[in-house]
Amino acid sequence: MWADLKPIGRDAESGGYRRYAWTRADQDCRAWFKAQAESRGLTYELDRNGNQWAWQGDPLAGDAVVTGSHLDSVPLGGAFDGPLGVVSSFAALDELRHRGVEFAKPLAITNFGDEEGARFGLACVGSRLAAGQLTAAKAHELRDADGVSLPRAMEAAGYDPSAIGPDPERLARVGAFVELHVEQGRALDVTGDPVGIASAIWPHGRWRFDFHGEANHAGTTRLDDRRDPMLTYAETVVAARREARLAGALATFAKVSVEPNGVNAIPSLVRGWLDSRAADQETLDRVIAGIEQAARENAARHGIDLSVARESFTPVVEFEHALRDELAALLREDHGDIPVLGTGAGHDAGILSASVPTAMLFVRNPTGISHSPAEYAAEDDCVAGVIALADVLEGLACT
Amino acid sequence: MWADLKPIGRDAESGGYRRYAWTRADQDCRAWFKAQAESRGLTYELDRNGNQWAWQGDPLAGDAVVTGSHLDSVPLGGAFDGPLGVVSSFAALDELRHRGVEFAKPLAITNFGDEEGARFGLACVGSRLAAGQLTAAKAHELRDADGVSLPRAMEAAGYDPSAIGPDPERLARVGAFVELHVEQGRALDVTGDPVGIASAIWPHGRWRFDFHGEANHAGTTRLDDRRDPMLTYAETVVAARREARLAGALATFAKVSVEPNGVNAIPSLVRGWLDSRAADQETLDRVIAGIEQAARENAARHGIDLSVARESFTPVVEFEHALRDELAALLREDHGDIPVLGTGAGHDAGILSASVPTAMLFVRNPTGISHSPAEYAAEDDCVAGVIALADVLEGLACT
Repeated sequence: MWADLKPIGRDAESGGYRRYAWTRADQDCRAWFKAQAESRGLTYELDRNGNQWAWQGDPLAGDAVVTGSHLDSVPLGGAFDGPLGVVSSFAALDELRHRGVEFAKPLAITNFGDEEGARFGLACVGSRLAAGQLTAAKAHELRDADGVSLPRAMEAAGYDPSAIGPDPERLARVGAFVELHVEQGRALDVTGDPVGIASAIWPHGRWRFDFHGEANHAGTTRLDDRRDPMLTYAETVVAARREARLAGALATFAKVSVEPNGVNAIPSLVRGWLDSRAADQETLDRVIAGIEQAARENAARHGIDLSVARESFTPVVEFEHALRDELAALLREDHGDIPVLGTGAGHDAGILSASVPTAMLFVRNPTGISHSPAEYAAEDDCVAGVIALADVLEGLACT
Repeated sequence: MWADLKPIGRDAESGGYRRYAWTRADQDCRAWFKAQAESRGLTYELDRNGNQWAWQGDPLAGDAVVTGSHLDSVPLGGAFDGPLGVVSSFAALDELRHRGVEFAKPLAITNFGDEEGARFGLACVGSRLAAGQLTAAKAHELRDADGVSLPRAMEAAGYDPSAIGPDPERLARVGAFVELHVEQGRALDVTGDPVGIASAIWPHGRWRFDFHGEANHAGTTRLDDRRDPMLTYAETVVAARREARLAGALATFAKVSVEPNGVNAIPSLVRGWLDSRAADQETLDRVIAGIEQAARENAARHGIDLSVARESFTPVVEFEHALRDELAALLREDHGDIPVLGTGAGHDAGILSASVPTAMLFVRNPTGISHSPAEYAAEDDCVAGVIALADVLEGLACT
């Protein structure tokens, strides 16, 4: 399975992937999914929001056990974030068939569309639409960097965008959703476990800091006469790290835009985007307030006008305790007590948790690196993930 | 004169100018120059490097007194940087004719091509070529952001690029070059003088700092596991300001490029360009060494690989003392003792000073702002500049 998926959207130089929603690479991934479904005699479906489903048993029977993840990627992303969950789902089904189990409930494998949001700037578009957390009207306004709208992109890829929107009937037929994902941190490496269970997704958001200064000549303007927004931006980057460290949270400036961005032109505007996450809302609020205060103090000192806008926000997601405990119990016999851990990253499972009982399994990532070609999981750990997923699916779907 | 020049290449929204070499706006400025020359009965010439000349008297007689500046601009630059010198040259000639002086030497007014380097990244291309400080071969390699080479750009504008290169015969006919320029700082505002004389152009250069880190997920990577080059860049920006302040020099990070520049992706690479200038070489060396040391210490602390490359450098230019003293003497009677000041900005006069006796006059800039639509000189000060330039030209060129 991996061998067919590996070359799709791969950058020859870096080894990273560019699999953006509704592009050629995404189409090739979708064709791969459909072929995997058909080769196993599963019933293939495309839902109205472009998510792919592969059914074992009757899709309309209800109380289905669903597993899966996504196949799209961030820019120059790794091979595991997303695809590991989809590949492991098919492999877990193969394992269950090998075990000769009897299915008491329908089982489905999914590929949710546009999870990473790399093209249109919003993550989890496929699951958000289905769960009613993104309206069709808002989705129609999404545009990529070339100005192509989401509906036009779907059409260009041969999909019908006319029916996108909430899909409550479909979600009502799902009894439980389990997403397996490569860990995006080193917690399992520290505890020495190949597999873990998710407790919660940290509250997280993006804030845009606009530092307005005064364009001037870098070769002639006295330091005292400057209103240089790059300096205030830099002080804010340093302050963000300090506030995050003090609070045990995460705060990152990773994207910046400068006007006019000329070597000898003091900028008129530096725009920096802050990504911040913490284990709870109160901590996150404190971190953001601390960073904003430091930015405002530095801005006042340098004559910089600062505006701060929250561009997106996702509150804490606590996965359902009953399903989480059931997973822990199902895994205890063969795997022992496995760690339960929070994560800073958003997932389709986080979106769906508002509509259906949802859980996540993580597979160890020895370096913790993700969203990079260096993202990695050892083969033994991937196998352990498949077995754990099979155990969970057997417990949930079989008699 | 100003009225015809004002609308050319002007951005309606900001009021700033985009007059890049060999573009439509530059062509319109050149047509304006030619029309000004012809309306005064001057002999118009285009030299082999695309610089414009307007002659009063015999161009071949030798020992000519030449004045002028440039008409091109930085991105969204102001109205005065360059054009003030060209307009004042024509106005000073009008003043001399009004005075009824007798010319003992030929006088020429010039517009040097591509002074700002906004299109091809290298400043003073026209004067560098003429003075032999840029070879034709190197000039052929210059490319703009769209990949258009300098020769192709000249051709597209209807100019012949085949003969670009050193023009020693032409420069040998120049006895003195005087460039009038709006001041790019507030020194004259501080001393209360409308006009000043240049002593020297500070040594200045550009250095590129490449901070290589490790791409990773901003939402899941523990602070201790990060190799975030944005943090080291920010600390270096702060260090640059500190080192410049301690040394009484200038140091500016105004241009930055980030890979992949995604909100939730810790960058793999942050590239920052440092522009630095100081009154003397030793001070500049000390500032650069201090900034680089701070950058290396911070890079080592955060696991960042740093490389520093000097992209360009111009040593100190001391304008000829004899001509400078002659200007001061010529101006003393009507203007009193006027300030002699250094500047951090490069000019065609700085390039030409290696080949011909060269001097500069500065006109007061009340805010010190330049390379910005807010660049400004008061009308009275502009008139004082024209009178001072006329006095200088009369002293140098007339019996």
